Amino acid sequence: MHQLRKPYLLFLGDVTIKSDAKTAFGLRDWCPDDVMGEWSLPACSVSLGLPRLAPAAAAQQGAGSIVVGVAAVGGALPQHWLAELEAALDAGMDVVSGQHTRLTTFPTLVAAAARSGARLIDVRHSDQTFPAGTGRRRSGKRVLTVGTDCALGKKYTALALTKALQAQGCAATFRATGQTGVMIAGEGVAIDAVISDFVAGAAEQLSPDNADGHWDVIEGQGALFHPAYAGVTLGLLHGSQPDALVLCHDPARTTIEGYPHHPIPDLQLAIDRYVEAARLTNTAVRCVGISINSCELTDAAWSAYRDELQARLGLPVVDPMRGGVAAIASALLALGTP
Amino acid sequence: MHQLRKPYLLFLGDVTIKSDAKTAFGLRDWCPDDVMGEWSLPACSVSLGLPRLAPAAAAQQGAGSIVVGVAAVGGALPQHWLAELEAALDAGMDVVSGQHTRLTTFPTLVAAAARSGARLIDVRHSDQTFPAGTGRRRSGKRVLTVGTDCALGKKYTALALTKALQAQGCAATFRATGQTGVMIAGEGVAIDAVISDFVAGAAEQLSPDNADGHWDVIEGQGALFHPAYAGVTLGLLHGSQPDALVLCHDPARTTIEGYPHHPIPDLQLAIDRYVEAARLTNTAVRCVGISINSCELTDAAWSAYRDELQARLGLPVVDPMRGGVAAIASALLALGTP
Repeated sequence: MHQLRKPYLLFLGDVTIKSDAKTAFGLRDWCPDDVMGEWSLPACSVSLGLPRLAPAAAAQQGAGSIVVGVAAVGGALPQHWLAELEAALDAGMDVVSGQHTRLTTFPTLVAAAARSGARLIDVRHSDQTFPAGTGRRRSGKRVLTVGTDCALGKKYTALALTKALQAQGCAATFRATGQTGVMIAGEGVAIDAVISDFVAGAAEQLSPDNADGHWDVIEGQGALFHPAYAGVTLGLLHGSQPDALVLCHDPARTTIEGYPHHPIPDLQLAIDRYVEAARLTNTAVRCVGISINSCELTDAAWSAYRDELQARLGLPVVDPMRGGVAAIASALLALGTP
Repeated sequence: MHQLRKPYLLFLGDVTIKSDAKTAFGLRDWCPDDVMGEWSLPACSVSLGLPRLAPAAAAQQGAGSIVVGVAAVGGALPQHWLAELEAALDAGMDVVSGQHTRLTTFPTLVAAAARSGARLIDVRHSDQTFPAGTGRRRSGKRVLTVGTDCALGKKYTALALTKALQAQGCAATFRATGQTGVMIAGEGVAIDAVISDFVAGAAEQLSPDNADGHWDVIEGQGALFHPAYAGVTLGLLHGSQPDALVLCHDPARTTIEGYPHHPIPDLQLAIDRYVEAARLTNTAVRCVGISINSCELTDAAWSAYRDELQARLGLPVVDPMRGGVAAIASALLALGTP
């Protein structure tokens, strides 16, 4: 389980395309209190609108980590970014990266970390070993976001749901299972980086026993209908033993992204299959709502789509970006009340 | 993908309980042509009935690897076994181990391997990275053994089926997905040791494109109904894209082994769920037979059980240890004939 030191200094390298800094923007938006400022190289043309702070200055003000908040080309850190990360390490800050290439493959970073005792943390990787899943029922309540595909709003929905539950006076914790989620939460596990034998066990550890009225809101991964990642999804589902599922969907997609021969399933079928699979570790599980990524729809089209879907499925249908997820939070709280 | 060098010298350490040498007995029985002899310490009271050969002598006769064919207490190699393995390395043989503790954690083995250029191979671990699954259909035919639980005959059934297909004149290859299977085949991947994101991709690489009439017989892992390992099972199922499934079952079990709160599913339900899941990557998949581990049944009870099950499910029911798997091999060959 990763445990990160906040607050963060967000490092943008020298990116020039805003979408390459998606992770940094996500951190700024989802954990603003944990973000102290931004830093970048002179050639960088993207800004988060945060105070500019050099690593040494950020460390002096109490920053715990410098976060590489961008997607590097080819998944590796460019050599000319390293001096800034070394400066952060020398100032005692951890370096947090979500790149494919491990920070420990850069000798100058390893040396700098050794000098100061700071840590190199690759949130995309998991060096921890976990026990196998036990299937034991845990106390407290759990909701897991699941999807008809990857990358269509499972993390966003879980974060919004955590806030909505808290706004309704409920104790709720976001449980991160992907690299950006781990950076936002400051802890969690990149579940797709875990050895396959221990995925359910890692998911069990991620949401331990808790108070009766407490909700863990667990970030889902992959999709049961995905030819590459369904195994990750199923292990996470079983280990999470959710009381409730929220199905995330993008109506603009007709096939799994990158897999044109694999259709997106019908929503009722998707619900049925997720509930069927989840019953293995929690027979009381139910789907409590649908979270739609409606960015491709006009206001009128969204409104009509939502009303039709709500009537057809008999479940609240929301878009976290368009009206929020309060209806699903209410459904969860109703579930918790006998 | 592991690639082992045969023939093997089987090393028994100083075990005194036959079942601790299960792996060595399995190798002797399943790949007798690849097993040159056995070696053990003076205190060992178990024998495979093979020629005794010291490592240096075995190397002189062409042995490629010494295989640690026993389950060590606590999963680690005892210190007093290491000299024999060093002797094998010094003679140019690889050391192959299925222990939890990696061979590379023993400095004297690392040094001996460096001296001779021989390899330390931990078949329980997988250091290789695999691409993500593609879902692309491959040529040739595939059958996967699946189960109602772990450890009830999926490897044994796959090995027997490979031999039965070959005996009926069909080109067939056993594809190993577990450590003992990898040792028997001399190649394969311990699928439960793969990073979860790449399980389906690894399974795809394990059974590549092949000739039209060729059957890959893929060793299954885990069970869809297992609270710890279902994700591994599903990833392997999707990546294997089997044309046929053989369901393995032990009628003496009523609950998942080690999970007393998780019942073994009804066999028809198990078939339906496996076929449903497998259709994601091969819509033509079907279950072609049932392989029973009937060791707890008398001859009369087995015969009655088999007949009842055959009638109820409408599928051939076999026990590889009691009459062989020819009926299922025939069903596979019938499937391959348009």
